[in-house]
Amino acid sequence: MPERLVVIGGDAAGMAAASQARRLNPNLDIVDLERGTRTSYSACGIPYLVAGDVASPDDLVARTPEEFRREHRIDVRMRHEAMAVDLDARTVEVRSLDHDRTFRLGFDQLMFGTGARPIRPALPGIDGAQVRGVQTLDDGCHLLTQAKEMGCRDVVVVGAGYIGLEMAEAFHRWGARVVLVEAAERPMSRTLDPDMADRVVGQIHRLGIEARFGVGVEGFEAGVVHTAAGPVRADLVVLGLGVAPESTLAEQAGLTLGTRGSISVDRRQAASAPGVWSAGDCAETYNRVSQRRMHVALGTVANKTGRVAGVNIGGGYATFPGVVGTAITKVCGTEVSRTGLSTDEAERAGFQVVSATVETTTVAGYLPNAEPMTAKAIAEKGTGRLLGFQIVGGAGAAKRIDTAATAITAEMTVMDVVELDLAYAPPFSSVWDPVQVAARAVVRQV
Amino acid sequence: MPERLVVIGGDAAGMAAASQARRLNPNLDIVDLERGTRTSYSACGIPYLVAGDVASPDDLVARTPEEFRREHRIDVRMRHEAMAVDLDARTVEVRSLDHDRTFRLGFDQLMFGTGARPIRPALPGIDGAQVRGVQTLDDGCHLLTQAKEMGCRDVVVVGAGYIGLEMAEAFHRWGARVVLVEAAERPMSRTLDPDMADRVVGQIHRLGIEARFGVGVEGFEAGVVHTAAGPVRADLVVLGLGVAPESTLAEQAGLTLGTRGSISVDRRQAASAPGVWSAGDCAETYNRVSQRRMHVALGTVANKTGRVAGVNIGGGYATFPGVVGTAITKVCGTEVSRTGLSTDEAERAGFQVVSATVETTTVAGYLPNAEPMTAKAIAEKGTGRLLGFQIVGGAGAAKRIDTAATAITAEMTVMDVVELDLAYAPPFSSVWDPVQVAARAVVRQV
Repeated sequence: MPERLVVIGGDAAGMAAASQARRLNPNLDIVDLERGTRTSYSACGIPYLVAGDVASPDDLVARTPEEFRREHRIDVRMRHEAMAVDLDARTVEVRSLDHDRTFRLGFDQLMFGTGARPIRPALPGIDGAQVRGVQTLDDGCHLLTQAKEMGCRDVVVVGAGYIGLEMAEAFHRWGARVVLVEAAERPMSRTLDPDMADRVVGQIHRLGIEARFGVGVEGFEAGVVHTAAGPVRADLVVLGLGVAPESTLAEQAGLTLGTRGSISVDRRQAASAPGVWSAGDCAETYNRVSQRRMHVALGTVANKTGRVAGVNIGGGYATFPGVVGTAITKVCGTEVSRTGLSTDEAERAGFQVVSATVETTTVAGYLPNAEPMTAKAIAEKGTGRLLGFQIVGGAGAAKRIDTAATAITAEMTVMDVVELDLAYAPPFSSVWDPVQVAARAVVRQV
Repeated sequence: MPERLVVIGGDAAGMAAASQARRLNPNLDIVDLERGTRTSYSACGIPYLVAGDVASPDDLVARTPEEFRREHRIDVRMRHEAMAVDLDARTVEVRSLDHDRTFRLGFDQLMFGTGARPIRPALPGIDGAQVRGVQTLDDGCHLLTQAKEMGCRDVVVVGAGYIGLEMAEAFHRWGARVVLVEAAERPMSRTLDPDMADRVVGQIHRLGIEARFGVGVEGFEAGVVHTAAGPVRADLVVLGLGVAPESTLAEQAGLTLGTRGSISVDRRQAASAPGVWSAGDCAETYNRVSQRRMHVALGTVANKTGRVAGVNIGGGYATFPGVVGTAITKVCGTEVSRTGLSTDEAERAGFQVVSATVETTTVAGYLPNAEPMTAKAIAEKGTGRLLGFQIVGGAGAAKRIDTAATAITAEMTVMDVVELDLAYAPPFSSVWDPVQVAARAVVRQV
């Protein structure tokens, strides 16, 4: 009998692993279990589905179950949920959700790509039907259907991180009256330094989204969200409080968990039992700058770690070197990005830091389409090593973060960054790229 | 008497050097000689002045002579031309162009920031008043005035490199009928690999610019350009055949010249005589990838090398590590960029190369504003070291070249590039950034 790989989860990490394993080992018997109705979709695209930029959820699907079956000979079983794993017996207990039938499936190798779930704080009314998290594409579809069927007018978004801000904008564009409620004093408070986060606030208001910062949510009732500052009307509540790794099944199977309950893996994405692997939003990862294990739920990381797991499962050799903490979003017409460590994260990792925030423009200042752009560089005191970078600005601002991410990966100093040969022409940049302007401003303090 | 620095040239390199020298040495007597009428302007902005995006040439001036005088105590003398340099006597012979008066100016240190001049091939009629190069802002102003006064309808642009393409588009937008004549078989043939250059051709035609490739120019007469393929009507002819370093004065003074007649300098921007410096378009530079001396005329390099010269003149210590060959332009709505070595340049530098060209999109393919984007990665056979990168595509495509430029500077391999933690969200990129998609395609060939 051929060796069998069972993959739990049919999104980015699971399917990347399955595809790579197939590429390396044509003889492997590969079964993928997905409890939802779609494979390999862009969860990051959900806000654009809600906003109407994307016509159909099918547009967000990179590859269908049928394509995986036909092109990769992967036995994708949709609406099949893994209920329990017996690592000694090497079996998974599987429930077919459509047929209400349970069976056991043997495996030689097992891959956990179970993803993450929206954090739902233990507040009164949190389980109300109108209080929705958004994680899977199925969640996104349900949310949109519910909003339409309810003739939804008032939407409250709880939490002003990436997902919260993107969903707030999406529902605003969809046509709802949106109130954003955030317990912290500013948006993106776990992502950006306070001076940079403050620059996002004006943009949120400018778009016509009402935002209440420093206001905690106390509970939910039909039609209303109770906050520390009083009740807020809400036909629908969208949770944007971040996600937690979906590792319950792995934990019950006896696998070791790490940071924030993520599945502990080594650099080859191997979990704590032989022949068991994990990748994506459910797995632990490593930050190359802080040199600490961390949990991050991002599509890029899911694709990369899934691929690494798949190569190793297929008999090859691949390692994942970790992340440097890059993230990007577009909210209310403003581009926001970060990489490396924030000031607070750097200090908690033991660095003494110097930093500078500079005001520049997205393109040559004399062109009519020049927009303001703020860039912040964070470096190690003494050595000048670039530790972090943050950008808030107009069109074309945020993707420059990749320059800083690459420089951080190469352990460049701010002096090295000033010397980089970056591209300049008036429609793209000022003659010194904003990344270099910020680095130069830090050089003087090193 | 205080030490005196004489700077020849009042644009990017000269003024960056003068300003840095002032910053480091408050006692220096600094005289700047500029034969034109403006300091520190963006020559790269001239096409946008012609096209009408920029209302006045003054908008392209970063800092006026008055500002340099007042804020930096630099004795800027406009319309003063350096006619000869006596390195033994330490004097410059200066002509005041407005007063037709010549005088000698002593110096302790001398900085050549004389820039470059458009290449004018020895063809019949090349000195006709209607045949114009575009290098200085004064050139740009004259060109525009002439075009307006002549009621210019037909413009021929000779040469389809950056400057030629940008000027062709500018005059097209200004309202002229533009014919572009290029001796090579394709545009940007010294910049891009042939397969990438071919992708620019369609864009040029689409905009309504008539382009004739593989057609040499044979001479000029009033109203007509004679080409190998027959005469072309031309009220005005714009030369876009590249530039040569303006090093005549330096050569006559006895300084050593290097590649293509550029002024030979060491890593501190010191020329071949003591106390003499050079930077910018007139000076030689170094390519970190080919490890060869080269000549490059770009605003970024002028600013950086000018700054290095100024620090050293002021008594500090700074070196210029060289370029990696980054350049970018926007032509006819298409973004084009390159960094490192082209395939041809890499092979001439002795590398055996592997490469891959991939078709991707500027943002997530399911968003309505996704545009096609082609990316090419060039790497060393065997080691996988990234040697070059080229991009042609829609809005947001080209500035990604900075990621590759930074990776090349850090001597990363294509495997390293695949592992980079680059920013992804649907409005910015596909989940694997196009730079990584191209790198992945090369990995398989290494």
